[in-house]
Amino acid sequence: MSLPPALFRYRAEVEAELRSAVEKLDSPLKDMLGYHLGWLDARGRPEAGDTGKRLRPALCLLTCASLDGDPRQALPAAAALELVHNFSLVHDDIQDGDLLRRHRPTVWSLWGKRPAFSAGWALWTLALGCLQKLSRSFPMSLVLRADRLLQESCLEMIQGQYLDISYEGKERVSLEDYLNMIGKKTGALIACALKLGGLLSPQGEETLGPLERGGRLLGLAFQIKDDVLGIWGDERRTGKPGGSDLRKRKKTLPVVYALEKGRREVLEVYRKPDITDEDVLRLADLLEDIKARDYAQQLVESYCDRSREELKVLGLSGGDFDQVFDFLKERGH
Amino acid sequence: MSLPPALFRYRAEVEAELRSAVEKLDSPLKDMLGYHLGWLDARGRPEAGDTGKRLRPALCLLTCASLDGDPRQALPAAAALELVHNFSLVHDDIQDGDLLRRHRPTVWSLWGKRPAFSAGWALWTLALGCLQKLSRSFPMSLVLRADRLLQESCLEMIQGQYLDISYEGKERVSLEDYLNMIGKKTGALIACALKLGGLLSPQGEETLGPLERGGRLLGLAFQIKDDVLGIWGDERRTGKPGGSDLRKRKKTLPVVYALEKGRREVLEVYRKPDITDEDVLRLADLLEDIKARDYAQQLVESYCDRSREELKVLGLSGGDFDQVFDFLKERGH
Repeated sequence: MSLPPALFRYRAEVEAELRSAVEKLDSPLKDMLGYHLGWLDARGRPEAGDTGKRLRPALCLLTCASLDGDPRQALPAAAALELVHNFSLVHDDIQDGDLLRRHRPTVWSLWGKRPAFSAGWALWTLALGCLQKLSRSFPMSLVLRADRLLQESCLEMIQGQYLDISYEGKERVSLEDYLNMIGKKTGALIACALKLGGLLSPQGEETLGPLERGGRLLGLAFQIKDDVLGIWGDERRTGKPGGSDLRKRKKTLPVVYALEKGRREVLEVYRKPDITDEDVLRLADLLEDIKARDYAQQLVESYCDRSREELKVLGLSGGDFDQVFDFLKERGH
Repeated sequence: MSLPPALFRYRAEVEAELRSAVEKLDSPLKDMLGYHLGWLDARGRPEAGDTGKRLRPALCLLTCASLDGDPRQALPAAAALELVHNFSLVHDDIQDGDLLRRHRPTVWSLWGKRPAFSAGWALWTLALGCLQKLSRSFPMSLVLRADRLLQESCLEMIQGQYLDISYEGKERVSLEDYLNMIGKKTGALIACALKLGGLLSPQGEETLGPLERGGRLLGLAFQIKDDVLGIWGDERRTGKPGGSDLRKRKKTLPVVYALEKGRREVLEVYRKPDITDEDVLRLADLLEDIKARDYAQQLVESYCDRSREELKVLGLSGGDFDQVFDFLKERGH
């Protein structure tokens, strides 16, 4: 399933906002970010690369527009979300040693790990600068509130990433532990995207409760689908090698499911010092046989449905939101 | 020379502010930060460890107080500066592979590199949260302004760190390149410390020009003294192995001086795949012989004097500031 029109509705404006943020840097950091964000090739020449889905800015702006806000005024918040998200991608790629992202070599694999860290940090710092631009259209109290929402969700995201890493060394991770971890690692920033959209709409603060709940559930659905793609995804579509999460010994949902079912085969493979391609294929087949994939997909759908219910309270339903939910359930990248 | 009383004037309040920021985290990240900041031992038990100089918060609060501001109200800004600084230390230690910091094992060497990265990011994110607390005492416009000053100086610091790394791979680094790099890497945050102190004083915005100039010069002096200690410092006082900057092939001021003098011996050692203890001792002696150390110390003193002149315009002189300048010139750690 390809990206639905709803995810393209404000795409051009988001790209322009991102470019204007990155312009503040000097080369070569500017070029590294332009490459990572998909505008430049590795030599700094313009290129129409894979930019990723730009899901978080789209969710922020669709939410804002559906609540009668002006998405153009919320653009700096949308860009900040995308920059923070990309910061985490650049750093994850370094820490995981991943060579490919969006069909292209990762930043660290081209420029080295230390320069890539600087690039990641620059992305985050630029995000803060973006939020400042909100003061052109909104009262300062609202800008500070937006700042706090983003800061708090980043703190959750960091703690979720910490848990994710620590689970790699644990033999026993319960479904509850797992859901807590992804709620922070992925759910916090996605919830923040919706909340910033609501905060910057005329209804403001009072939308935050339902958006927090709906956004968090949507984040769970998104991450579990990501886990499925991290095992069974098609490299031609995901832009990453197939089975990569198994090779990295990640405790993703299908693996946690197998552990909960008492299937020790996963641990036996994960304990091996070198995991072969054959191990990965065998493990993926085993997980499929024991219905781990089906279970994950059911969870994705049920979290999407629960998210939809929460958002319906605010009148966020139909058209654009249906497209987003359908995409999250069925996406292949 | 030990820390002067001026650097202890607001120490207890700064520590309390830092502790209250770190309290927001869950263990074990909270324990890792408590360890790094010097309150806890590696097992999370209270300890009176080496906290470092806490120079940036002291500069911020001394500036604020000297300009008739209330340093207690500026505490969140002071804490934010220290958290950002410590973020950069935690990450530098990982990237440089350093095992010792302030006489104790570095965070990454105890908890591993990936958890240490999370700890670093947590420090950075907590710094942003600190600034928000300024809104208890100051108008929102001032809080946003403080936010922007910190954000801009971080962006400079990142670019300076990037240059620092890139110079390690360059054979020719001019004095001008070097001064530009340290002005960003170290000068930006120290200048920010003074500027935040001035911004939060009754004179506010109009103090920023002299504080920027005076702070930047003070930052140059501080870094060059650091470079001297990185070669000739006494491990018992610095808490880091002697000669470590030479072992890491850093283009510090004494090395840049030697290169400007056409002395190629440094490059010959830096090109070796393994630098021995003997190489380090020999190189340190050579640099001393060609007066690189004297030259560095002269620069420290002249930048201190120029900084003092700039700050005098605002009436920042005498007592506390004299203590700080004397310490920066003569410090052994």
